[in-house]
Amino acid sequence: MRLLDISAIKSIIHNIGLTIFYQRLIKQLEEDFSQWHTFYKSPRHAIHYKHGVIELMPCSDDEFYSFKYVNGHPNNTAEGNLCVVAMGMLADVKTGYPLMITEMTFLTAIRTAAVAALGAKFLARKDCTKLAIIGCGAQSEFQAIAMQSVLPISQVNIFDIDTDAMNKFSNNLSENFKQITCCTSAIEAISDADIIITVTAANKNATLFSEENVARGTHIHAMGGDGPGKTELGTSLLKNSKLIVEYSPQSLVEGEIQQLDESYIHAELWEIINGLKTGRENNHEVTIFDSVGFAIEDYSILKVIYEISEELDCGTKVDLIPDIDNPKDLYGLLKQ
Amino acid sequence: MRLLDISAIKSIIHNIGLTIFYQRLIKQLEEDFSQWHTFYKSPRHAIHYKHGVIELMPCSDDEFYSFKYVNGHPNNTAEGNLCVVAMGMLADVKTGYPLMITEMTFLTAIRTAAVAALGAKFLARKDCTKLAIIGCGAQSEFQAIAMQSVLPISQVNIFDIDTDAMNKFSNNLSENFKQITCCTSAIEAISDADIIITVTAANKNATLFSEENVARGTHIHAMGGDGPGKTELGTSLLKNSKLIVEYSPQSLVEGEIQQLDESYIHAELWEIINGLKTGRENNHEVTIFDSVGFAIEDYSILKVIYEISEELDCGTKVDLIPDIDNPKDLYGLLKQ
Repeated sequence: MRLLDISAIKSIIHNIGLTIFYQRLIKQLEEDFSQWHTFYKSPRHAIHYKHGVIELMPCSDDEFYSFKYVNGHPNNTAEGNLCVVAMGMLADVKTGYPLMITEMTFLTAIRTAAVAALGAKFLARKDCTKLAIIGCGAQSEFQAIAMQSVLPISQVNIFDIDTDAMNKFSNNLSENFKQITCCTSAIEAISDADIIITVTAANKNATLFSEENVARGTHIHAMGGDGPGKTELGTSLLKNSKLIVEYSPQSLVEGEIQQLDESYIHAELWEIINGLKTGRENNHEVTIFDSVGFAIEDYSILKVIYEISEELDCGTKVDLIPDIDNPKDLYGLLKQ
Repeated sequence: MRLLDISAIKSIIHNIGLTIFYQRLIKQLEEDFSQWHTFYKSPRHAIHYKHGVIELMPCSDDEFYSFKYVNGHPNNTAEGNLCVVAMGMLADVKTGYPLMITEMTFLTAIRTAAVAALGAKFLARKDCTKLAIIGCGAQSEFQAIAMQSVLPISQVNIFDIDTDAMNKFSNNLSENFKQITCCTSAIEAISDADIIITVTAANKNATLFSEENVARGTHIHAMGGDGPGKTELGTSLLKNSKLIVEYSPQSLVEGEIQQLDESYIHAELWEIINGLKTGRENNHEVTIFDSVGFAIEDYSILKVIYEISEELDCGTKVDLIPDIDNPKDLYGLLKQ
């Protein structure tokens, strides 16, 4: 059984390169979403406390079983801790034996951005060069690089109420894009964008910009509206766009669409990938991927990172499962 | 964050001694059961496959969050693998940060036996010296030693259809008990027993012995009846005994009581521990603890083993959580 800690994941990403890693992961995500009905899907298991939430997100097909442990503690930052940390496991369905335990704080940021890129591949115009990002938190750089791995993005407009966060973004990605512009408002940032990513942290019903601020033909990746009472877009924009979700029952609770009802959902992403419903049809319509995150996405990255760790022989081998000659003699093994 | 592998757990048990460990664990279990209403309890999450099951069992109070990953693959033995393996995690509820990952195949066997001993403490006669065990699989030795940690057991009668399994039990525990007798039938084994443990593996509705075979005053720890369609005792014996369960909604599906209905349940164990209902009242009644396993039990052993690992500084420190100065700069940490 393999253990991938922070340094193992960093070493894998450095070794392969984030862009190549994204391309491989996006391919896996597309394959897994296309096999939507072969997955055992179930709601996440959550325990809510006064000050946070702890969740288990299991997912499985007939080959691998995966789960992610993830928390959400908004007040952690004040103590110098991350609000969200995660770890995950992959197991062999045939035997039930665990194969790998891994950090998933980085992997969650990476898979979340890869899902955005997968959505854009089907929903954005192919000639997108200008990206706007509203919200420059921990997720923002991952989003920008993932989008660049599927589209010819050269310019990025960013906006955040925290100037330090914008500077951090600019510094981190100065070599990745021709031009990065720090803007003074969300509306300024999106004014000439082909793609908009909304990824703000405020836990409230916000309206970052209005329908009239959005140019025809834009694709919006709305990912900051991802919990009950946490939204970023107004209903007029939602109503007049082509709205795509991952999994309707979950999105109706957690996504932008919680403000409306199921009739405003055009499709689930897997339906577009499989050609059952149309993606983008012309250069004029506004598309919105109202993404909240789904356990299959964790499954996909756990599968990819497991394959890579086997190929490169990374991480540490750990003995968490007894290696036993006589399965009835567990006590004998303990006595040894 | 601490990782406890097989050798760390073995080293802890060798260091402390299994009997002393049981005493500490039984105390913790009693304390946790007595705080029954302070726990966030929820059904286990299970995915059923043609050839097995994979489960997540979460449990939490306001201090610690725990979960166990556990499988059940009856055909694994044919390939030289264990049918059931497990691993677990303990996290800090205040921050949501994981504190420990540990093997739980051994720990599950140990906590299951400790629960049996806790039940016997409240339900068996104090002067029990003769124990009968029906089924000599992986769990059997753990059960015997746990019982001995709370009661003056000196003789053990055992029966299993597999003679090798009985010999294994006798050899493993020859120094622990004055007398161990391999019997030729379950009825012979229980004929003069003060306590009976039923712990067979067959996945069917079985009747290991009948009501008339059981002496007055006996306590039966019925733990092999622990899944739908898997029982070990007949309804006449159940109806004429004082029957205790861990958690009625789960036991009515998985326990011996699945053959009857809720009206035959005398109490949940926590009610007896807290004095809300009576345990054993005299030396004549037959008591049955219809135990199926419950997530609080995993919580208790994870808490104890975490405390001990801190005291003894055992296991390995692993970096599964990013240690970050600026929580908004996850990408910067990856680039380093």
